[in-house]
Amino acid sequence: MPSLRCASWSVPFLLLSVPVLSQPVKGPSWEEQFRSLPDPALLREDMRHLSARPHHLGSPYDRENAEWILARFKEWGWDARMETFEVLFPTPKERVVELLEPRKFTAKLREPVVAVDSSSMQQDEQLPTYNAFSIDGDVTAPLVYVNFGVPDDYEQLDRMGISVKGAIVIARYGASWRGIKPKVAAEHGAVGCLIYSDPRGDGYFQGDTFPLGPWRTEDAVQRGSVVDMPTYSGDVLTPGIGATRGARRLPLSEVKVLTKIPVLPLSFGDARPLLEALGGPVAPEGWRGALPLTYHVGPGPAKVHLRVRSNWDMKTIYDVVGMLKGSTFPDQWIIRGNHHDAWVNGAEDPISGQICLLEEARAMGTLVKRGWSPRRTIVYCAWDGEEEGLFGSTEWAEAHADELQAKAALYINSDSNGRGFLGAGGSHSLEKFINSVARDIEDPETRLSVWKRSQLRQISTSALADRPRLRAAQDLPIGALGSGSDYTAFLDHLGIASLNLGYGGEGGGGEYHSIYDDFYWYTHFSDTAFVYGRVLAQTAGTAVIRFADAELLPYDFNNLSETVRKYAEEIKQLFKKERDEIVEQNAQIQEGVFQAIADPREKFVPPSMEGVPPYLNFAPLDNAVDTLSHSATRYQKAAAKYLESRQPVPVRVNQELLQSERMLLSQEGLPQRPWFKHLIYAPGFYTGYGVKTIPAVREALEQWQWKDCETQIQRVAAGLERLAGHIQTIASELEQSPKQ
Amino acid sequence: MPSLRCASWSVPFLLLSVPVLSQPVKGPSWEEQFRSLPDPALLREDMRHLSARPHHLGSPYDRENAEWILARFKEWGWDARMETFEVLFPTPKERVVELLEPRKFTAKLREPVVAVDSSSMQQDEQLPTYNAFSIDGDVTAPLVYVNFGVPDDYEQLDRMGISVKGAIVIARYGASWRGIKPKVAAEHGAVGCLIYSDPRGDGYFQGDTFPLGPWRTEDAVQRGSVVDMPTYSGDVLTPGIGATRGARRLPLSEVKVLTKIPVLPLSFGDARPLLEALGGPVAPEGWRGALPLTYHVGPGPAKVHLRVRSNWDMKTIYDVVGMLKGSTFPDQWIIRGNHHDAWVNGAEDPISGQICLLEEARAMGTLVKRGWSPRRTIVYCAWDGEEEGLFGSTEWAEAHADELQAKAALYINSDSNGRGFLGAGGSHSLEKFINSVARDIEDPETRLSVWKRSQLRQISTSALADRPRLRAAQDLPIGALGSGSDYTAFLDHLGIASLNLGYGGEGGGGEYHSIYDDFYWYTHFSDTAFVYGRVLAQTAGTAVIRFADAELLPYDFNNLSETVRKYAEEIKQLFKKERDEIVEQNAQIQEGVFQAIADPREKFVPPSMEGVPPYLNFAPLDNAVDTLSHSATRYQKAAAKYLESRQPVPVRVNQELLQSERMLLSQEGLPQRPWFKHLIYAPGFYTGYGVKTIPAVREALEQWQWKDCETQIQRVAAGLERLAGHIQTIASELEQSPKQ
Repeated sequence: MPSLRCASWSVPFLLLSVPVLSQPVKGPSWEEQFRSLPDPALLREDMRHLSARPHHLGSPYDRENAEWILARFKEWGWDARMETFEVLFPTPKERVVELLEPRKFTAKLREPVVAVDSSSMQQDEQLPTYNAFSIDGDVTAPLVYVNFGVPDDYEQLDRMGISVKGAIVIARYGASWRGIKPKVAAEHGAVGCLIYSDPRGDGYFQGDTFPLGPWRTEDAVQRGSVVDMPTYSGDVLTPGIGATRGARRLPLSEVKVLTKIPVLPLSFGDARPLLEALGGPVAPEGWRGALPLTYHVGPGPAKVHLRVRSNWDMKTIYDVVGMLKGSTFPDQWIIRGNHHDAWVNGAEDPISGQICLLEEARAMGTLVKRGWSPRRTIVYCAWDGEEEGLFGSTEWAEAHADELQAKAALYINSDSNGRGFLGAGGSHSLEKFINSVARDIEDPETRLSVWKRSQLRQISTSALADRPRLRAAQDLPIGALGSGSDYTAFLDHLGIASLNLGYGGEGGGGEYHSIYDDFYWYTHFSDTAFVYGRVLAQTAGTAVIRFADAELLPYDFNNLSETVRKYAEEIKQLFKKERDEIVEQNAQIQEGVFQAIADPREKFVPPSMEGVPPYLNFAPLDNAVDTLSHSATRYQKAAAKYLESRQPVPVRVNQELLQSERMLLSQEGLPQRPWFKHLIYAPGFYTGYGVKTIPAVREALEQWQWKDCETQIQRVAAGLERLAGHIQTIASELEQSPKQ
Repeated sequence: MPSLRCASWSVPFLLLSVPVLSQPVKGPSWEEQFRSLPDPALLREDMRHLSARPHHLGSPYDRENAEWILARFKEWGWDARMETFEVLFPTPKERVVELLEPRKFTAKLREPVVAVDSSSMQQDEQLPTYNAFSIDGDVTAPLVYVNFGVPDDYEQLDRMGISVKGAIVIARYGASWRGIKPKVAAEHGAVGCLIYSDPRGDGYFQGDTFPLGPWRTEDAVQRGSVVDMPTYSGDVLTPGIGATRGARRLPLSEVKVLTKIPVLPLSFGDARPLLEALGGPVAPEGWRGALPLTYHVGPGPAKVHLRVRSNWDMKTIYDVVGMLKGSTFPDQWIIRGNHHDAWVNGAEDPISGQICLLEEARAMGTLVKRGWSPRRTIVYCAWDGEEEGLFGSTEWAEAHADELQAKAALYINSDSNGRGFLGAGGSHSLEKFINSVARDIEDPETRLSVWKRSQLRQISTSALADRPRLRAAQDLPIGALGSGSDYTAFLDHLGIASLNLGYGGEGGGGEYHSIYDDFYWYTHFSDTAFVYGRVLAQTAGTAVIRFADAELLPYDFNNLSETVRKYAEEIKQLFKKERDEIVEQNAQIQEGVFQAIADPREKFVPPSMEGVPPYLNFAPLDNAVDTLSHSATRYQKAAAKYLESRQPVPVRVNQELLQSERMLLSQEGLPQRPWFKHLIYAPGFYTGYGVKTIPAVREALEQWQWKDCETQIQRVAAGLERLAGHIQTIASELEQSPKQ
């Protein structure tokens, strides 16, 4: 619609972060009109509806919700459709945890009804407490407490002379994604794994418990997937391809991402008798939780019997996909997603985010009726099967990989939402852009912009030395993304610039993945007035509209190159730290420190001498960062000048621009996990959700695998040089036309 | 005895830290002979005897112990006598703690018998659980939880908009000496104070509880004095003078060091119902203990009734003082002390230290029988009434102040003792000396010297950057002394160079000041073989003998001046930090940080603007440190050269030397507490036991009292210049004679 395009020029181009907008003929801009539309009353009603019954993948209400969402999209004028995939989803058949020695105890494995909370009574439809993708197993063994069950904890156990070989480990939730715990336990020879919610992190230690307060009660359990997601996400039978009906599937026996040992989650009510029965040394101070007992490590005398069997069935994924076709650049896509499936009723996770996505879609439908037509294509997605391993988003991304790599300019994700501060993470080429959006969104509690509120919090919580920089900051730094929600396939597998948005940091809660994450809980303890629902819809929707209507796609590569420079510095520091640590530890072994300071009444095994690594060549990385930095500066200058000319940007230029993030992919992927292709961002192999930036190099250093480090450094450098070359080309195109 | 003096020259003088020793005619040196004498079997028997019954100040067994100790000294050939003082010592008459609302609960205030532990059954003789020197009172008020009850905690309460005015506060033990808690509570308007032992710091969180393990049980209570010891120590009626029978006493109404509000200690069993009844905001994370409840701050709905009445009676202190007269320098005294009174049976506190002192005395008696005669006078003291406020040592020090200031060269203290590492604190003029002693003592667990073991631990626990220095260290740093044991009057009031010695750091325990601190507890959980008892006797006795027999008193002023230089740097950094903090806080108030980041569902009161202090003149301090440093270097050089000459050191020189520490006294004393006269060391006015170095300046800075800072800086500088001048004089005497 050219009339709109002409109108857009009335907006002055001072900064790339204030991009060209298509504007209505008169009155408030489309963006402004959009922001007035999301309605807390509707958000509340949508949450009531979508969380009314348990709606996990494969459940009747999961499909009903998808169909309801589809109907809404259509009603709002979107071109919407259901896309289905067939995935493997094990559900509980048998679950037993028993203490056999030194006394008998059988775990309840059951969350009781809470009288004031009606949906806690829907017990027939609730998925029992379990960890999906645990293998079947039946083991009886001595118990060992392994703290969070991350690699450092096993290092400590080694020092205490304690092995988990042949043992069942009990780990508390926290410090890593849950799927890491059985993975590391199995690597150390354990035969079973229990994961419990300690009240220290998730219960009365934090605050009043449900229904008096928002925190986890004695019998509430955190369900969750334990599939090895850092290896690949999505359906376990179809890595890298869409799990369509006819897709070629791995036999289950060849699937490498199931756990190696049986796993079950426990409430702290069920965990307490097990922990009380442990002997052996007292757990190190940092390992102790908030149960009223002395935490011991074991092994034994506690002996535990663990049995897990699942129904290994195929289920259907219902992804809802709605589109508003772009008027000017229909082959440039802005994608927005949030999952709709939950472990049980999931009012917070994920409905608090899904209702925002729906309000954005409704509001954009309204804008279209008022005459708006987005210049680029907008794609809104309600994903199914996120909880099991990002199934809905990953299968869709894999099934449409070629089209997405050709067309996608941006993926914006959200998931759970609450009160407080804007949390924004993502590609650093989008850092300046999302800062510009945040400046235009008003915080409902303080009436400041959400940007200002975040800046003031960062000033308050940062080190004194960092504050002048923050006070003068044009842009607040955004975090890098690891995994744990639906951006993963877009960013890490396909190289699509992505953002993850949500509000939080006020209030708290321990309802996560329990039957108590429901409408009662959310409307008593979280964003009870749905004003942060409105503000998330305003934030994400503004970002979508601004990106969709921009004359030139508003990436900024200076922010990216400065961030990568920081990562490169961290990597060099990390190497120095690890190397120094080895040198120091060897010195201490030789001077007898460990024997000298050990208490002879406590078993202690000193570490062994380690080979000191040679110094590594980080120069290719530094050089590549420099090249990228120069290219970025040249590009931003060329872009600003071009926009000043008020000539339309050629389609080709935007088309090339949206490919930029793809330059950072490596076709080989990361070592031992080729599905993850992004050279700058990945979930940690031993953190699960937590990001590792420049992962191939960083993880090699952390794991003291020096051999391939330089190869990986060169690979990352090549990716950065590729991106630098790509934006140099675009810059030179912009410099050459229009004639000046 | 000149023959011995001549023999001593056979020891080469490489370092001042290896001083001249009087030596036996042949065979092992007296020091070596001494170290072979302390006997674990006798240590054990002495502990059994001295801890057999409760022996608090004023009890029959307290006096029996003193008489038994006196008899032993005489039996070993010491010139020993009993010295008595009359002091005020309140003991419990009435003790009530009741929860009145929202439900009824009456605290037990009673420690139950433990079947395996026979002395826990001596209930008739046990002093009930209470805090001595609480005023009498009967109050009913809402309860507020104040964490540790230190000034920072009230700062936090202010931010939460919570006042303790008219409330009873409940504080947990820890972070400060207990007497600070009611003092600060009263300053903030509280009307009563309860102090309880949280299992986080002192109970099942730390380890298995008694009698399964060493840690505090649900009903065990920490007794203790709450007199305002940082104002003055010793009998409350006779500050600054000996509490002899005819001494002039303050009327009780004029005593300023009693608490201002009634106080009682609680077990966590008694505290739990009170804490459970608290409403109001959830306590900040750092405030939460290990009870299985959500810690709330209040005030109310918990309403508490507290009643305390004491018998305000006079009791007799029985100090045992034994002497071995010096053969060469009889008017130069080496004093050694440990208290003998306890709160109940006190096997650890203080008998584990007292038995070492006794073994030293026995061994020295044996040496005398073998022909040894110390060159200086040795004074061994078993103090009474330490627990109430360092009564026995303070009254003796005050009663003999003139003689002590004329004669005392060194005071060596010990108190409780356990397994592990040498803990040495004291005057830094003694740092090099005690390092030399520690090099000659063998650790019983590792067979390393206790010096080496400490060094290796410091290497292991220090920051990487500090390790090269530690590895190359001639001397390990010793800590400065605050208060909490019997060195206080000697060091802080009289300016006698002092050391406090003890072993610890392995094992643990929660028996402190309860009925379970007894022979059963100690012989099951602490130094069960009494090998660390032997090693403490070896350490302290070696120090006494080496100092007593030294040709030139082995002070080292270089270590002192370097330590004071470090303190001066800390002071300047502290000023900068406090000033920056005010500037920053004002900036944050002006830019609206506090309102912006507060959660509107939680009450929050932002801080107010503060006046920014002017920059202060620290130059006098820096100049004085420099002067001291030059004098110290000159003195150490002159001393080394003199000793090389093998001429006897004139009596006058040693006599002057032993006055050095006195130069650091200020006759005015510290602001608002003139009894404390040392310019470099004092217990903190708001920490109680914890030391504040350069206290008049440091505390003024911490409390943002800028006005008198420069006066105090000048006063400290004058003290350092005084000491510098004093040792310059001595140096010049040594330089002039003997003729070289």
